[in-house]
Amino acid sequence: MDYQHVLSEQDGATVRITMNRPDRRNSLSVAHLAELEQAFEAAAATKATGIVLAGAGPVFSSGHDFGDMAERDLDEMREMLRRCESLMRTIHAVPQVVIARVHALAMAAGCQLVASCDLAVAAESAGFALPGGKGGWFCHTPAVPVARSIGRKRLMELALTGDPIDAPTAERWGLVNRVVPDAELDAAVDDLLARATRGSRHAKAVGKQTIYAQLDRPEADAYAIATEVMAATSQSPDAREQMRAFLEKRKPDFGG
Amino acid sequence: MDYQHVLSEQDGATVRITMNRPDRRNSLSVAHLAELEQAFEAAAATKATGIVLAGAGPVFSSGHDFGDMAERDLDEMREMLRRCESLMRTIHAVPQVVIARVHALAMAAGCQLVASCDLAVAAESAGFALPGGKGGWFCHTPAVPVARSIGRKRLMELALTGDPIDAPTAERWGLVNRVVPDAELDAAVDDLLARATRGSRHAKAVGKQTIYAQLDRPEADAYAIATEVMAATSQSPDAREQMRAFLEKRKPDFGG
Amino acid sequence: MDYQHVLSEQDGATVRITMNRPDRRNSLSVAHLAELEQAFEAAAATKATGIVLAGAGPVFSSGHDFGDMAERDLDEMREMLRRCESLMRTIHAVPQVVIARVHALAMAAGCQLVASCDLAVAAESAGFALPGGKGGWFCHTPAVPVARSIGRKRLMELALTGDPIDAPTAERWGLVNRVVPDAELDAAVDDLLARATRGSRHAKAVGKQTIYAQLDRPEADAYAIATEVMAATSQSPDAREQMRAFLEKRKPDFGG
Repeated sequence: MDYQHVLSEQDGATVRITMNRPDRRNSLSVAHLAELEQAFEAAAATKATGIVLAGAGPVFSSGHDFGDMAERDLDEMREMLRRCESLMRTIHAVPQVVIARVHALAMAAGCQLVASCDLAVAAESAGFALPGGKGGWFCHTPAVPVARSIGRKRLMELALTGDPIDAPTAERWGLVNRVVPDAELDAAVDDLLARATRGSRHAKAVGKQTIYAQLDRPEADAYAIATEVMAATSQSPDAREQMRAFLEKRKPDFGG
Repeated sequence: MDYQHVLSEQDGATVRITMNRPDRRNSLSVAHLAELEQAFEAAAATKATGIVLAGAGPVFSSGHDFGDMAERDLDEMREMLRRCESLMRTIHAVPQVVIARVHALAMAAGCQLVASCDLAVAAESAGFALPGGKGGWFCHTPAVPVARSIGRKRLMELALTGDPIDAPTAERWGLVNRVVPDAELDAAVDDLLARATRGSRHAKAVGKQTIYAQLDRPEADAYAIATEVMAATSQSPDAREQMRAFLEKRKPDFGG
Repeated sequence: MDYQHVLSEQDGATVRITMNRPDRRNSLSVAHLAELEQAFEAAAATKATGIVLAGAGPVFSSGHDFGDMAERDLDEMREMLRRCESLMRTIHAVPQVVIARVHALAMAAGCQLVASCDLAVAAESAGFALPGGKGGWFCHTPAVPVARSIGRKRLMELALTGDPIDAPTAERWGLVNRVVPDAELDAAVDDLLARATRGSRHAKAVGKQTIYAQLDRPEADAYAIATEVMAATSQSPDAREQMRAFLEKRKPDFGG
């Protein structure tokens, strides 16, 4: 695949997707969003078990690209925002575990990306902001997944003030899983991803997809989904192998 | 407006609404609830950008007024509780950022008020309780917004024990945004409110209202709301001004 | 009641239900699940105000019993998972306050039990895991109540890595209410349960049941439930007694 704004490379069982518009602070133009979604879809079709989303240059991502949007009409803006939402859904839908590698700054739709990845590791010096709150256009859609990662009062503070929170605060609030010294960022991403991609890739793929399906619903509705999926997957070769291996006191073999 | 139980004064861009039944520990009689709602509606109609909700006297608020309720029948109680719920909805609906200034004690419906404000700052010595849990009438409705601010196990502890938590615990659980030494309470409220009321007031009003509309819903439903609103508001004068100012490397001017 | 896998004894106002398959690490076979549900239903019919759920032997519970499941077909697995879900619903439905006493390890459906109890206290040395994430059969149903106790990113970490978290982390994330030195576990369970079972048992029962009914819903739907229940219960003898006692400055008497 030949991308203009994105780098994507397979590195063993991991696909590394890098936002690569450093001069534009990895802002998310329509073309950039489209390429990111293509890159995730291409990665989904591989046998990789993990995807790292990173940003090249001075920041992780500054969010939507005002240069790309200033003169767009309502239909064009709706189309752009639907493309953005589609990218977030694709991150939830791919069978791989997706981890955000966050350095420097994740703003607006960039912060939305962090909230939408399955896991996130941040450098100690990173910051997170929904800056629309102090401007003229509120961060309505970034607030959707951010609200589902942190508490309501904390969302309101981020969204209304527009001020950044630092990485330790992001970890304390549950927006990221780990904060590490800047020099250890890649190692920490790789370590958490390695631990999150063990076992059956088939089981894991259905696992993450089912979690997104059951979240945010009344518990009875969530069980209606999870119970059916768990019953169905009990008959899969990998579940059968897991149970047999347990009983035979050996390591399971999921066929690599 | 001439209130009996409430003080309301405009102080620059801020309206300060104070529960003023200190001898009744700011308990929320039907008359008090009605005046509070009127005061919020009156503030909503002003050009103020922020509202501070405070309590005069020994406590923030002790909750519903048993003296007002002891002999009421079912229809009267339902009417009282609907009025209380209506006040909470009004706090979410007003275009201003609403911040609770919490000192001493916020109990039952007083704790519900704290959970229902957009932001909250507490004095170090403050406490928060849902005391119905150890009495004869459970705090059913206060548990609604409190459940949406803190985790499930923590809600159960507050609601079942009836015991107060201290302010640092309330901050750790996400019920309030800040805890400060008692002497710094007003300064901290003003500082957070100032940071939360910058930028376009039109954008901010739609922003907070849309957050309340999308919370607690499955993510796809939340996006259906937020994407439409974000597309629509992209065409607003203030969003246009924000994008132009960004491209022209100047500060935006939202017309004061 | 004569149980094979469960101990249940009444101790004053508390029923102590103990999973008692220590040689099988309290794994949850169909027979074990059925007896646990029977024990909760039997306790529900008593005048006890609290239920402690504990595990005998080396761990709290290791989750589903692979020995019991390896050769089961889809219909049998669905039946087993529905029985498991039914146990979790019963814990929410009983009028008593249910507290988990967690030592050593709570894995998979054992971790689901902890998340499903109203309250939980853990020994300092305890761990919590959703190990399906690194195996062949994902912990789909345990993720339902765990997701509703901790944040989304933290759920993903637990569910995808399969690695255990320690007790202080479980407390920080909101999965348990307290962590105490191992030697103080029983005292801490009894202390929290004593505080959570004061007051009217009728009010408390409706209280916890209504909280589970209103959780996970849009706030307006939650208020529709909570407001009606709170109005209705205002007419109960115990609510009336509470209000009268308050006005008469005496302790309420709920008839023991």
